[in-house]
Amino acid sequence: MYVSHLECPKCSLTYESERLIQLCVCGSPLLVRYDLNKIRTVFSKDSLLNRKPDLWRYRELLPVKKQEHIVSLGEGMTPVLHLKNIGPELNMPALYMKDEGMLPSGTFKDRGAAVGVSRAKELGVKVLAMPTNGNAGGSWATYSAPANIRAIIIMPKDAPAINLKEVSVKGADLYLVDGLISDAGKIVGRAVSQHGWFDASTLKEPYRIEGKKTMGLELAEQFNWEIPDVILYPTGGGVGIIGIYKALKELQELGWINDKMPRLVSVQSTGCAPIVKAWEEKKSESVFWDNAKTMAFGITVPKALGDFLVLDAVYKTDGCAIAVEDKQIIKAQQMIAAREGAFVCPEGAATLAAAIQLVKKNWIKADDTVVLLNTGTGLKYPQTVETNPPVLQPDDSISI
Amino acid sequence: MYVSHLECPKCSLTYESERLIQLCVCGSPLLVRYDLNKIRTVFSKDSLLNRKPDLWRYRELLPVKKQEHIVSLGEGMTPVLHLKNIGPELNMPALYMKDEGMLPSGTFKDRGAAVGVSRAKELGVKVLAMPTNGNAGGSWATYSAPANIRAIIIMPKDAPAINLKEVSVKGADLYLVDGLISDAGKIVGRAVSQHGWFDASTLKEPYRIEGKKTMGLELAEQFNWEIPDVILYPTGGGVGIIGIYKALKELQELGWINDKMPRLVSVQSTGCAPIVKAWEEKKSESVFWDNAKTMAFGITVPKALGDFLVLDAVYKTDGCAIAVEDKQIIKAQQMIAAREGAFVCPEGAATLAAAIQLVKKNWIKADDTVVLLNTGTGLKYPQTVETNPPVLQPDDSISI
Repeated sequence: MYVSHLECPKCSLTYESERLIQLCVCGSPLLVRYDLNKIRTVFSKDSLLNRKPDLWRYRELLPVKKQEHIVSLGEGMTPVLHLKNIGPELNMPALYMKDEGMLPSGTFKDRGAAVGVSRAKELGVKVLAMPTNGNAGGSWATYSAPANIRAIIIMPKDAPAINLKEVSVKGADLYLVDGLISDAGKIVGRAVSQHGWFDASTLKEPYRIEGKKTMGLELAEQFNWEIPDVILYPTGGGVGIIGIYKALKELQELGWINDKMPRLVSVQSTGCAPIVKAWEEKKSESVFWDNAKTMAFGITVPKALGDFLVLDAVYKTDGCAIAVEDKQIIKAQQMIAAREGAFVCPEGAATLAAAIQLVKKNWIKADDTVVLLNTGTGLKYPQTVETNPPVLQPDDSISI
Repeated sequence: MYVSHLECPKCSLTYESERLIQLCVCGSPLLVRYDLNKIRTVFSKDSLLNRKPDLWRYRELLPVKKQEHIVSLGEGMTPVLHLKNIGPELNMPALYMKDEGMLPSGTFKDRGAAVGVSRAKELGVKVLAMPTNGNAGGSWATYSAPANIRAIIIMPKDAPAINLKEVSVKGADLYLVDGLISDAGKIVGRAVSQHGWFDASTLKEPYRIEGKKTMGLELAEQFNWEIPDVILYPTGGGVGIIGIYKALKELQELGWINDKMPRLVSVQSTGCAPIVKAWEEKKSESVFWDNAKTMAFGITVPKALGDFLVLDAVYKTDGCAIAVEDKQIIKAQQMIAAREGAFVCPEGAATLAAAIQLVKKNWIKADDTVVLLNTGTGLKYPQTVETNPPVLQPDDSISI
């Protein structure tokens, strides 16, 4: 393993990486740093040729020391689809979508959980706890099971039934709370300090980002190390955009890609857009968004712990932040399904809605290579589709 | 493309492959034959090294002529997981599961649909129709959308809501029938003959098998061209087991693998076990199974059009056929989820239940390499999991 240390991006304090740690003493999330000079001598693009198509193909850039600690369900190397039907019509002939629905739990949360749980196992964690709106809980339950880690998952009582069921079947300890994810978070906070459990909440441990980072590594490889011009990312906690940015910086330091960065776009919903507001006001941090509400449940995060890192990535890459309405999300979801065949989650659909707006504003140009990040499968969101098909009798005939 | 002709496995009649065709005049499904001598000169294991991890990496062994006709959502190269926790406990240290849940629609049906629709597009199909219990309809709707083919899908009115929704959102024409899949099939039969639509029902066109065949090609590659000892496959229409057998025969003819065949196990439910009954009676065809009923909806096929091909594959490989009870299926599903982290569909879980029985009968031995074929994600089967978690108030505390 090539981890050199952990570093606070806020106060620059460093920590050694072989002990269990949560946040920096200043309250900021910690980032994992690697000995990239050493990695450069042992890891090359050719190393990848014979490796399996999962995220562990980049193991030199991941924080697990021993192979035996890795828990894997084959996650990673999700496809990048060229949206050949809708792209040209929308004046984006080079429009692509990275489809994170094709992961073990149908969501990009699996990446953070695969790496986070593997590292937690390596560092001796026996019990972890986390609040969730649903998908992250499913993913951490997924990997905790083979890792023999007991997972305590708390989610709002109105979370989708499929999320409750997947957490339960995977053997985690599931609790509901008569409240919001923030209430779940408070219960978790009290419990971890009382019982000494590991807190697996978003960004409260350093390794989830490393898993999410692999989206950036894969995109670079899948575009043959020629970075696309624009990447649109639906932003709740923002771990993915932070991870993609970190991945590309590391690849630059390794000399695998040139200095060009993609313009990173943080996509939110008009019902919960703290990052967008901060970006519009040129702030470096966001302000808590009151009465957050959007059908894109996964990006209903009123104030993200890593907001300053998201904004930093957007500013440094000449990106932008943009909010879309729920009705635009639904329309985009239907468009991707009916024209390209992919049933995406509302958060993923939001990125297409945003791209359409950015073309109108001429911020995205026809010669840009544009990548939408679809963070999960629509199969976990049946409530987003209404249908009322005709019912036939066995003797009926049909025509069109 | 290296297709030489189509061949009837029952009466041996041959057909040329460049026109649209459904069944043989004798009523049997047709099989695609290739010029393997020619393929041997242009295609080698090394050809695979730089190809993307999807099923089109085996394009020389697939029936699509022009690249531009391929509709793809990145399907294929699903992971093979070593079940390290439950395998040793069940006296199968080399127990593996190929996880077909990680496909665009969460089901192995995507393979047949990707190849079937691509070839249908190539041959000029504008409208296709099919009956389905749910998943196949979802998959054919998935690929028909980007192929600009109009898909008419008919399913029983009590099919799971998620299947209705995914077919609808993908823009297919969805009808329900107040009856069984056989009633849907009759409506489709009348409609295709009346309107000249393409009939995409199971095995009524030759190309779906070719897509399913890629499970066998992938397994061979993933086991480094050393074929495992036993493959267990949940059998409804049986297209997958027919396809795997066909794939391995073709690889043998190419000289990529040796003469060893895996023992193929056809797994059914005690509520619908026509293949098992035929195998026990050493018959070459099955008899219609009355009052078929099992929670494993996908294998509720009372009489498969390709039953004689399934039985042939089982006999020729010294395999067997075995039925399991619904309660064993549920138990197996929970075991895989809670110990290995994978939420599998009931059909996939049935293969573990069957393997456990075959170990008891000493038919599977401890030194056998055993592969379970999980045909889809459990996320499409929320009804298989019951959960009733405690509801907390925000001020509550928890402990374990």
